[in-house]
Amino acid sequence: MSTAVAHPNIALVKYWGKRDDALIIPATGSLSLTLDVFPTTTVVDLDGSADADEILFDGVPATGTAAARITAFLDLVRALAGSSHRARVDTRNSVPTGAGLASSASGFAALAVAAADAYGLALDERALSRLARRGSGSACRSIIGGTAIWHAGTDDATSFAEPIAGPDLGMVIAVVDAGAKAVSSREAMRRTRETSPYADAWERAAAADLVAMQAAFAAGDVAGIGELTESNALRMHAAIMGSRPPIRYLAPTSVALFDAAARLRAHGLEAYATADAGPNVVFVCAAADVDIVRDALTADIATGRLIAAHAGPGAHLVEASA
Amino acid sequence: MSTAVAHPNIALVKYWGKRDDALIIPATGSLSLTLDVFPTTTVVDLDGSADADEILFDGVPATGTAAARITAFLDLVRALAGSSHRARVDTRNSVPTGAGLASSASGFAALAVAAADAYGLALDERALSRLARRGSGSACRSIIGGTAIWHAGTDDATSFAEPIAGPDLGMVIAVVDAGAKAVSSREAMRRTRETSPYADAWERAAAADLVAMQAAFAAGDVAGIGELTESNALRMHAAIMGSRPPIRYLAPTSVALFDAAARLRAHGLEAYATADAGPNVVFVCAAADVDIVRDALTADIATGRLIAAHAGPGAHLVEASA
Repeated sequence: MSTAVAHPNIALVKYWGKRDDALIIPATGSLSLTLDVFPTTTVVDLDGSADADEILFDGVPATGTAAARITAFLDLVRALAGSSHRARVDTRNSVPTGAGLASSASGFAALAVAAADAYGLALDERALSRLARRGSGSACRSIIGGTAIWHAGTDDATSFAEPIAGPDLGMVIAVVDAGAKAVSSREAMRRTRETSPYADAWERAAAADLVAMQAAFAAGDVAGIGELTESNALRMHAAIMGSRPPIRYLAPTSVALFDAAARLRAHGLEAYATADAGPNVVFVCAAADVDIVRDALTADIATGRLIAAHAGPGAHLVEASA
Repeated sequence: MSTAVAHPNIALVKYWGKRDDALIIPATGSLSLTLDVFPTTTVVDLDGSADADEILFDGVPATGTAAARITAFLDLVRALAGSSHRARVDTRNSVPTGAGLASSASGFAALAVAAADAYGLALDERALSRLARRGSGSACRSIIGGTAIWHAGTDDATSFAEPIAGPDLGMVIAVVDAGAKAVSSREAMRRTRETSPYADAWERAAAADLVAMQAAFAAGDVAGIGELTESNALRMHAAIMGSRPPIRYLAPTSVALFDAAARLRAHGLEAYATADAGPNVVFVCAAADVDIVRDALTADIATGRLIAAHAGPGAHLVEASA
């Protein structure tokens, strides 16, 4: 029995668009902070006598596409390990699935670490990052603790995340809507690629943003990091909104929270807003300012919907197989 | 004394981006509906003894940039007429200036018609449209009654609006915020051009949208017109949002009103949302559905902020000079 824990990550330079759908090679690199909240805990146990994988999400048997994605991932691990054993996977999320809080990133990061151990694979961090990427692109970043850069690469071997040094950052997550998304990230990414006039320009802009972000990280420039983060997120949402039919992920409250970030800055607090492919808004600031930013937002959204977060650990085993 | 009346117009395919700043030749053509609400009434009276133009906005002397734009426009009319007479301009708007309800379009359309008459110029509709364009690009469309297409053209002679036949459309204007805009359209257009990665792609997309919209007009396809209108507006806002620093014109309530349009459609009502460079949202529908759409929106915004509108007349003289 192998048990691993992983945490979600929030990108400061977004991943949106694939170069290779099968290998999940992204069109551009990205950069993120792995958090210390909302862990996913995944147990993988091999069963030599079973003829199918058994997959539980929070104790409930998974079916359909969700189960198929896990089995396809396990097939990949089995191919690497030269094993045909089926597995029992028991995964527990502390974050609402599909609500834009990137449970797929923590989920596949934890699964990669637990399954690699269960199947007896000795993988280093880079290999685990490459493996997690095959399950869900952004999962490769949750393998890494704290701030991580995902090098887009050109093939399976060159597309992985690794740590990047920078200032100590924190985040405040504002949960706008914990319901399921109207359009999944995968579908929205496809529709952006096929119908948005901005898909190509987004890729060029994101690549340039990543270069600028690395410079801001090297300089320890929190305000520069924040400005790039907010603009990059809005550019991603703009590229998505250009799709036909249009896809709008930002809800009225999301927009109010972007306005709130501007208001905080007008009051001298260096806080910047970002949002993944969903309505939740995440505020980025210096780690030391997290509590101040959270408290300043209670006028905008219920306190219970604000979660303070700091840099969290990379995906890791908490119980190794015997 | 020459008095002219003109009405605002709302674009179904937006004008955003200039090919020539001085002549106001747009990067792409656009298509609009001139409304029957919020008229601007402008009186122009020549004064052979004055040494400066006297400009009144709603009875208050205009100063600064606003006055300078009017004087520059009158200089153009004087050059055409071979006159050096100064003028007294008294303009009355029934729409909040600068709130995104296009008072500059009705304003320069009314001024073009009144000033041309006052200075003794005999201009046909096309020449008036070209003249109004020099004051404010979209004013060339308010010269035309009902639905108008502004051909981008390549120079002053070829850039003008003219009527386009199509189904009888109506609109419901939702006034989200009547305050002054944070970033003017002119400044935002410049920043989009200089900093948004989407500026070029927007121009290509808008040109393609205009072709598709002409086909939908020819087919009398209200749903097709509406879908193109909503997507084209979101693409414009996306291009603007890509600017750095970002410019966001859609307020939380604006987003809620786009959601409301989707909700109305889910209930079988063919209503589509659009928004100019500001927070107001305008619903487009068949003329016969205007009252139903307005009434259906009272759950989303106060009744007093909803204005039903239909096709209105082109700019016209109501009192000619003696």
